Amino acid sequence: MAMTKKLIITLLLLISIAFVHCLAFHVELEEFKPPQQEEQDVHGGGGSSKGWQEELSEFPYHFKKQSFKNWFQSKEGFVKMLPKFTKRAPNLFRGIENYRFSLYEMEPNTFLVPLHLDADSVVIILQGQGVAEFVTAKTKELFHLTKGDVVRLPSGITHFAINTNQTVPLRFAKITIPVNIPGQFQNYFSAPSQFQQSYFTGFSKEVLSASFNIPEELVGRIFFGSQQMGQGILRRITPEQIKEITENSTSRSNKDKDKSTKFSPFNLFTHDSVSSYTNDFGHFHEAQPDSFDQIQDLQIAVTWTNMTQGSVFLPQYNSKATFVTFVENGCARYEMASPYSFQREQQQQQWWPEQGGEEEEDMSGQVHKIVSRVCKGDVFIIPAGHPFTIVSHDENFVSVGFGIYASNSIRTFLAGQGNVLSNLDTVATRVAFGVRSKVAEKLFTSQNYSYFAPTTRSHQQT
Amino acid sequence: MAMTKKLIITLLLLISIAFVHCLAFHVELEEFKPPQQEEQDVHGGGGSSKGWQEELSEFPYHFKKQSFKNWFQSKEGFVKMLPKFTKRAPNLFRGIENYRFSLYEMEPNTFLVPLHLDADSVVIILQGQGVAEFVTAKTKELFHLTKGDVVRLPSGITHFAINTNQTVPLRFAKITIPVNIPGQFQNYFSAPSQFQQSYFTGFSKEVLSASFNIPEELVGRIFFGSQQMGQGILRRITPEQIKEITENSTSRSNKDKDKSTKFSPFNLFTHDSVSSYTNDFGHFHEAQPDSFDQIQDLQIAVTWTNMTQGSVFLPQYNSKATFVTFVENGCARYEMASPYSFQREQQQQQWWPEQGGEEEEDMSGQVHKIVSRVCKGDVFIIPAGHPFTIVSHDENFVSVGFGIYASNSIRTFLAGQGNVLSNLDTVATRVAFGVRSKVAEKLFTSQNYSYFAPTTRSHQQT
Amino acid sequence: MAMTKKLIITLLLLISIAFVHCLAFHVELEEFKPPQQEEQDVHGGGGSSKGWQEELSEFPYHFKKQSFKNWFQSKEGFVKMLPKFTKRAPNLFRGIENYRFSLYEMEPNTFLVPLHLDADSVVIILQGQGVAEFVTAKTKELFHLTKGDVVRLPSGITHFAINTNQTVPLRFAKITIPVNIPGQFQNYFSAPSQFQQSYFTGFSKEVLSASFNIPEELVGRIFFGSQQMGQGILRRITPEQIKEITENSTSRSNKDKDKSTKFSPFNLFTHDSVSSYTNDFGHFHEAQPDSFDQIQDLQIAVTWTNMTQGSVFLPQYNSKATFVTFVENGCARYEMASPYSFQREQQQQQWWPEQGGEEEEDMSGQVHKIVSRVCKGDVFIIPAGHPFTIVSHDENFVSVGFGIYASNSIRTFLAGQGNVLSNLDTVATRVAFGVRSKVAEKLFTSQNYSYFAPTTRSHQQT
Repeated sequence: MAMTKKLIITLLLLISIAFVHCLAFHVELEEFKPPQQEEQDVHGGGGSSKGWQEELSEFPYHFKKQSFKNWFQSKEGFVKMLPKFTKRAPNLFRGIENYRFSLYEMEPNTFLVPLHLDADSVVIILQGQGVAEFVTAKTKELFHLTKGDVVRLPSGITHFAINTNQTVPLRFAKITIPVNIPGQFQNYFSAPSQFQQSYFTGFSKEVLSASFNIPEELVGRIFFGSQQMGQGILRRITPEQIKEITENSTSRSNKDKDKSTKFSPFNLFTHDSVSSYTNDFGHFHEAQPDSFDQIQDLQIAVTWTNMTQGSVFLPQYNSKATFVTFVENGCARYEMASPYSFQREQQQQQWWPEQGGEEEEDMSGQVHKIVSRVCKGDVFIIPAGHPFTIVSHDENFVSVGFGIYASNSIRTFLAGQGNVLSNLDTVATRVAFGVRSKVAEKLFTSQNYSYFAPTTRSHQQT
Repeated sequence: MAMTKKLIITLLLLISIAFVHCLAFHVELEEFKPPQQEEQDVHGGGGSSKGWQEELSEFPYHFKKQSFKNWFQSKEGFVKMLPKFTKRAPNLFRGIENYRFSLYEMEPNTFLVPLHLDADSVVIILQGQGVAEFVTAKTKELFHLTKGDVVRLPSGITHFAINTNQTVPLRFAKITIPVNIPGQFQNYFSAPSQFQQSYFTGFSKEVLSASFNIPEELVGRIFFGSQQMGQGILRRITPEQIKEITENSTSRSNKDKDKSTKFSPFNLFTHDSVSSYTNDFGHFHEAQPDSFDQIQDLQIAVTWTNMTQGSVFLPQYNSKATFVTFVENGCARYEMASPYSFQREQQQQQWWPEQGGEEEEDMSGQVHKIVSRVCKGDVFIIPAGHPFTIVSHDENFVSVGFGIYASNSIRTFLAGQGNVLSNLDTVATRVAFGVRSKVAEKLFTSQNYSYFAPTTRSHQQT
Repeated sequence: MAMTKKLIITLLLLISIAFVHCLAFHVELEEFKPPQQEEQDVHGGGGSSKGWQEELSEFPYHFKKQSFKNWFQSKEGFVKMLPKFTKRAPNLFRGIENYRFSLYEMEPNTFLVPLHLDADSVVIILQGQGVAEFVTAKTKELFHLTKGDVVRLPSGITHFAINTNQTVPLRFAKITIPVNIPGQFQNYFSAPSQFQQSYFTGFSKEVLSASFNIPEELVGRIFFGSQQMGQGILRRITPEQIKEITENSTSRSNKDKDKSTKFSPFNLFTHDSVSSYTNDFGHFHEAQPDSFDQIQDLQIAVTWTNMTQGSVFLPQYNSKATFVTFVENGCARYEMASPYSFQREQQQQQWWPEQGGEEEEDMSGQVHKIVSRVCKGDVFIIPAGHPFTIVSHDENFVSVGFGIYASNSIRTFLAGQGNVLSNLDTVATRVAFGVRSKVAEKLFTSQNYSYFAPTTRSHQQT
């Protein structure tokens, strides 16, 4: 009987393993549905700026600078890319799935080797001086680039770039719109490097030899060889080489000046067709796609915002455009009204709507307060229609934005002179807000500043 | 041995539980694939109208009026919305996922408080009289609305509406095209109500105080306060208030008359660019997107159909447009030829193609007969290319339709004068239908009416 | 005790079955994730053409002719269709999900009965002579078709086609762009056949009788009857019938000649707006969407490539367009540089990216060599931006291509006269490829031919 008992115990063990095994399964499957977590929404309506630093970045709209992935990094500079937005919040960002944001930094006297992308891009120069050359079978265009320049990079264009400055890094932000696979694109380099193979390695030596009409041995040495293996996609270049390239091209460039082509860069600070606004508390520049051939077909707007210390970018919303905004300098408090609340599926680091599945309608009538402290190097998203405001902190706050679906989008201010609510019929205001005529008339008209205003009321009695 | 037996029985029980557990699993997983159910297709080719009332609405194309969700309801009126089409039939309606249908009713002397949507919309007035005002920073346009008016509501426009009539409810149908998330949008209200928070609750008091340059206390009272808490988004408004608003704006409106703007409403019954057809058995009005700036970019067509008792809207198909059709009055029999047959996944209330998965091709060569009795308040879908007909019953049948992807779509009649098949070469008809010349010539030319015809042959010898 | 042992053995067996059962599950579920398989990528950089015939078609880009499904087949001809591209590689081909490729062959003196599609299409005639007629309520256009003709078939147009030649089959390739469900469309026939029901079977007899104003008995006989049941959708037609149809219509056609309509076919070999290139080693014709009203809105380009034996279509990429290419004659070696590597999920015959899931970024810097032997009847895909080359073998190689998203796409050659890299600054070439000035200057300029060159260097010293 003792043996029987042992056997039975063994059997029970085996059975319990089988059970646990099956149960483990259940758990795994259930985790596909986001678990109910404690609310991530932010309370404390008073919005005091103390003590909200940590918890406040817990929103899918805010990508801290650590969110970037290093795509390339060397002593000569780096390329960083934000993951697909839908990886963060699959449903919330479905509409901008096909847009990718990346950041480039090139050290002084460096050269980005020729490449093309299977994507359209729009670039804004954040800092420094450089040149970029676009090459086609028939044309070769060299552009001089400086802060505030916006460059449209058409899909498939072969191009290279150079930081021509001796001391300052060349930095730029880029939004990329893939043409093959939604949200996915690649860089195709003609020359090999340690970091990235030449696309010619996709071909056999004998075909390349015949195609280039050069010996196979040379094909091997140049395209597959180890010559460039110590080199990255960013390379040192001598001032003489820079001079040689830019002089060659400048002469050509000058000839072309009159017939400035469709894809010539334009500058956000100086071009007449840019909408600009300036007052004591900040300045704002916006290039709308309908005003520039370069960005019209992509429906991308580009903005540059500069706020002095302690000012507020007045509450507003964009009627159609969703903005991907990069913080170039300083820190700010960003407040936004969202109809959605979120919970995070922990393991996958994804955000889902709090109520029901993807298809579920939120009919609660609630407005959710999104408050976040955004700092240099961060990215935040402002979806269309969502009222938002930005309050600058201890120093100048500078941000650049790419507006997606920006064609015919209207920036609609909710406060300040010329705000949309001040234009409502007084009767409508009275009935809507339940106030007397006097209050109604003053409610939306007491702020004399537009766009930017001081954060303290005492300053504003101008 | 008895103990051994008991143990063994216990073990067997445990094992069977384990088994059932695993099997249960199998079942669960299998339910992801739609189970084989009895055919939902409709039999009885003769199509007698007796006894088909109940079972015939079992098609994904037909949304009974109970399908609407109440988004808002009060004594002052209601807003009802149809669920996402893809919630009903994920694959079948993928192409119209980003379109939502809703229905509004405002009681006499009521006011819809100012709001904007993160979506474009097209509205058709079904009944009543009212005004709508569109407000931007620079413009304020008040439109007088009456039955048959089509209003384009651009994404993000701040607007309000009033039922100006003392006795008749103002009713309108709306198709909405979200700009942020496919098939999802929200209403953003500036003023708080019992039903819906003000979007200003997304901001902190201190920021609002600075932005509006008003005391924090007032901010709290107006935007977060309980003043309006007894009020819905639809509110009573006095005839005096209505007069004040409309008189103010009419004067402005008059000045603007010459420069009628891009988004001025137009009327389906009176505008010259609307295609209209009338005979004894019905009348039909269609505004095509290529003829109206208001709806051109959205590629939405709007139709109004009115059939007298006992008439048939002749068999036809739309070459590119898919119509979402709302029944405004009466009942009718709707017949459609569909290449797809369906079965319903019961628990999720979703419809899937009968054969194979989403990706599977139906190569059976079968045509499936979709027959449904549609009544006042129902919605039905007519996909592009699908031949369909509508037969009115005991009273006038009135329906309005929104055509999706309607740019360059051609309404192609298959019967009646000027039908496409009557224009085929006689030889082609003979070879195709296997009939003699005489029959071929008369086959598609014996019906003298166009668009609408009587349902009884005896009536038609005109 | 013996009995106990037997029982225990039985129990153990049961338990192991339970175990296996659960484990089997694990395996099944795990197979949803692509298993790690041996690399499918192709090695042997030398690319010798010996012995690569079998294994080299193991890429998602290459559809062997067996991949086609017979949609219809009879003595009078066939219609074959390629499965949805996303069925083969769900992520890789997401961008071209809504495009379907099919192949038609009509025997001499056959008639394709009138039909319409819920899709737009572009057709290229590969061989033979025929006519097609497009019918609307008001117009009837008959087009004579011959090899190289490109026909735009608008969504929903009722049409028929005839092989008017007495001896040669009429063959054409078609790309189809569904309007209802992405990647899915149907053919709607007015007349019944053995193979396919008439769409009038979607209606009840009494409604048809009223609509056509003909007796119910006749309705039953013509639309539901068995008269045509022995017939397919392709039917024999006598030369006299052909004459009758074409003569009737030619006269009409002649009147219309001056006002050649938007959808009149054009010929790839003779139309002035087609880009053509010819040398001793091949000729190439490309109709770009921006040059032809017929294909502009669809953004489809159409190409015809003819390479003599032993020539190379020089390395190149398309800046925006993805080409679906059909091999009309001969065999060729197709080489392409892809940033993606693949593994196949065996049971479902689907291809997935090798690294991580759909959302994972490939940042390996590797270029993958796609080499395949493509022969008559095969289809291969060339995505935008991907450098590729084609080397013809033992006979003339002929292929036709449909370019998707081809608006403003630029065909960019990487070798041969006028290649893009020869237009780079010499300094840039030197720095990028790490070569001396002399080599840099000759690297991309030693091939004097454009487009097509001989595969053996000895031939090229022209």
